[in-house]
Amino acid sequence: MTEPPGPTRPFSFAPIGKVRTDVPDADIPRRRRELVSRVEIDPRYVDGLVGIEAYSQIIVLFWMDRTPESDTLLVQPRGERTIDPVGVFAQRGRNRPNPIGLAVVDLIDCRDGVLTVRRLDAYDGTPVIDLKPYDSYDVFPNPRMPAWLAARVAGRGEA
Amino acid sequence: MTEPPGPTRPFSFAPIGKVRTDVPDADIPRRRRELVSRVEIDPRYVDGLVGIEAYSQIIVLFWMDRTPESDTLLVQPRGERTIDPVGVFAQRGRNRPNPIGLAVVDLIDCRDGVLTVRRLDAYDGTPVIDLKPYDSYDVFPNPRMPAWLAARVAGRGEA
Repeated sequence: MTEPPGPTRPFSFAPIGKVRTDVPDADIPRRRRELVSRVEIDPRYVDGLVGIEAYSQIIVLFWMDRTPESDTLLVQPRGERTIDPVGVFAQRGRNRPNPIGLAVVDLIDCRDGVLTVRRLDAYDGTPVIDLKPYDSYDVFPNPRMPAWLAARVAGRGEA
Repeated sequence: MTEPPGPTRPFSFAPIGKVRTDVPDADIPRRRRELVSRVEIDPRYVDGLVGIEAYSQIIVLFWMDRTPESDTLLVQPRGERTIDPVGVFAQRGRNRPNPIGLAVVDLIDCRDGVLTVRRLDAYDGTPVIDLKPYDSYDVFPNPRMPAWLAARVAGRGEA
């Protein structure tokens, strides 16, 4: 198979906004489920929000800029001391080759270029790089997961 | 609120692999649901796949490098001639400030650094920038959507 023809866009991007929360970094992971944060969109990009309030959930992509660079590809998932390390692409941890964070969040409000969302596990000041509406094509009920994760989910009463 | 302390990671990233498919670009969107593609992971990153086969679905993030640059923030969703333009963050179209594509796909197979997946709407040769396992925290049954999208979903028998 031949390579597709150019031109192609270079790998460079710009933040479209940033996360705002009063919660300290260290408290974000364990408080995620009830966490309410703001996403402030850069005034240049606010027109891109038109119609977003029609969705109950959105996907937030963010740049985890406070994650130290690392070449490690096998990591023990947080809090899982009894299992062998797992590949970085087989878990949602912050340590990954490209530190892009992804969260499906409840959209509570959108006005004046500021989104209010619930369940965003991003630190205060984190650059946001894209927002996408969550729709029924993203819903796969009862996904198969490894035993360690299924046990964790069940333990939180969300099985 | 003060800005968090540095240092922070610069906005630069590298592909971890690429998409392979025999399907021509123009046919990808309408054939998405039954499309089976390969994701070839760069040998440097193959260890990051350990354990991924325990998941039934994964999220593929890719760089839509054949999308022309554009400043347009309001776009009519593909095929929707009767509605007003919608903000780029309120739809899943390719035209967006940072051309990052996101697809939840069925994971069919993973061996020798090559993933076989179903439902990936990315062109042949597209750079892949991250893979994340899909888990039950990503499932929000019956998400609210705008009327034009709900009608489209219903028309495909997926409501």
